[in-house]
Amino acid sequence: MDLKQGLAQYKEIIDNNITRFIPENCPPKLKESMEYSLKAGGKRIRPALLLMVCDHYKVSRELSLPVACSIEYIHTYSLIHDDLPAMDDDDFRRGKPTNHKVFGEAIAILAGDGILNTAFEILSNLEGIDPKIQVKLIKELSVSAGITGMIKGQILDIEGEEKQLTSSQLADVHRYKTGKLLTAPLKMAASLSKLDKETAEALYSYGDHFGMAFQITDDILDVCGSFESLGKAVGSDEKLSKSTYVTLHGLDKAKLMAKEHVQQGIKELEDNDIKVPYLPQLLTYLLNRKA
Amino acid sequence: MDLKQGLAQYKEIIDNNITRFIPENCPPKLKESMEYSLKAGGKRIRPALLLMVCDHYKVSRELSLPVACSIEYIHTYSLIHDDLPAMDDDDFRRGKPTNHKVFGEAIAILAGDGILNTAFEILSNLEGIDPKIQVKLIKELSVSAGITGMIKGQILDIEGEEKQLTSSQLADVHRYKTGKLLTAPLKMAASLSKLDKETAEALYSYGDHFGMAFQITDDILDVCGSFESLGKAVGSDEKLSKSTYVTLHGLDKAKLMAKEHVQQGIKELEDNDIKVPYLPQLLTYLLNRKA
Repeated sequence: MDLKQGLAQYKEIIDNNITRFIPENCPPKLKESMEYSLKAGGKRIRPALLLMVCDHYKVSRELSLPVACSIEYIHTYSLIHDDLPAMDDDDFRRGKPTNHKVFGEAIAILAGDGILNTAFEILSNLEGIDPKIQVKLIKELSVSAGITGMIKGQILDIEGEEKQLTSSQLADVHRYKTGKLLTAPLKMAASLSKLDKETAEALYSYGDHFGMAFQITDDILDVCGSFESLGKAVGSDEKLSKSTYVTLHGLDKAKLMAKEHVQQGIKELEDNDIKVPYLPQLLTYLLNRKA
Repeated sequence: MDLKQGLAQYKEIIDNNITRFIPENCPPKLKESMEYSLKAGGKRIRPALLLMVCDHYKVSRELSLPVACSIEYIHTYSLIHDDLPAMDDDDFRRGKPTNHKVFGEAIAILAGDGILNTAFEILSNLEGIDPKIQVKLIKELSVSAGITGMIKGQILDIEGEEKQLTSSQLADVHRYKTGKLLTAPLKMAASLSKLDKETAEALYSYGDHFGMAFQITDDILDVCGSFESLGKAVGSDEKLSKSTYVTLHGLDKAKLMAKEHVQQGIKELEDNDIKVPYLPQLLTYLLNRKA
């Protein structure tokens, strides 16, 4: 199966299962709001990364699927809160009105809180797993999502909005804001697959390069993309006079940087004889993505 | 030691330790915002309940203190988000400007998210505990705080704001919004103390009565209290034309209802020979509290 088919297949699995982890007896209006954003789609890259690794190392889907979804829950809640008027004030996300535009700000705040909380509820409900590994997964998710992880990146992003950042400050914003939650599926997959330390660390390093390449191409698309393919207003970063890899280094240098991360990520896999399907192609795919 | 001294002692322990569970490398501005609300005080009733039970059953403070604080983290994040302009739009909390009034809405949203997330990070970092019990604690906290617990109550509260609620609808709002997080410390203390099922359930039932008595007296104080003692605008519920136990049943009936829950809570303890210090007096104290 080629990468495009593989990604489509993983996306379908996530799309079909993402809302089934919402606990019963959730108030209908809150459920509707949570489902709206959880079903809003996107590429499902984070849960796909986890499933790719877990499938290769023969972890049962009964275990890997809820864990994959817990990461997508964190990603989804962060988008709902990021879009709020007090934050990025975005009216559209993936071509659809943002959560607070449909349900109002109060419900959107609570839906975000609820989805964040549910991520940990999902992990605490896993069955047929060594509780030591279960605690490890909860630790990995909370650290990746938390105030020394993704939330740290959100703060650095806000603080840097009207400033000219240095190259290393900009890398930090992305290492935390996007990178930590892109590395989380690789860490959690390594724990579920009980990989040895060396292999696990090579996977994390792949994840770091993946995160950087992902963000740099995102900045490139923000200049070169179109509203149709991105589902959000093009040039929104520039409007906020945000530093991006493109504003900081120029388009050509940014493309070169993305390419280098792709090469280094692939090298990590090769040097450590990691044969997980799709992982190398996924990096190359980032360079050519349109959305 | 009498109840007042006991409560003061537990409050001091929590006040002195509440911020030490914020992970290092948290961005300074976020840390400042989180600490502002975590240190804002309050009665620390939830963590005190957990410590009272755990101390009686000889659980080490090394374990019980972080668990107690994780519950107070959830309580604190919920207050920060509740106070936001899109929610209750409160300018003061415990006599001090609310978090978003000091740090701005964006930081307040992220501080709330960060504190919520950290609650689970704290529990995943516990050491010297059977990982099965650790997972149980995480499950208990996430269910109590989540969309079938406290957040459900917040939604019911918003939905009921401009309506005349029935007595049972009002009880539901409080059973979830306040009650679930008041029962959580008793559940988690029972797990930490490895209590038998019968004793644990009697403690939960005590917690239910405690939660109801707490909320009814809160409604009574909203009518009869003063800004000095409450630290918030008196009559704010009435301003929002919210249903309360007082608007629904009248002051005298509300006082009677509170008294009945106090008596039933004490009976649960006596019938099950639970001799945890302070628990019975704490209920009586609710009836006479001024803040």
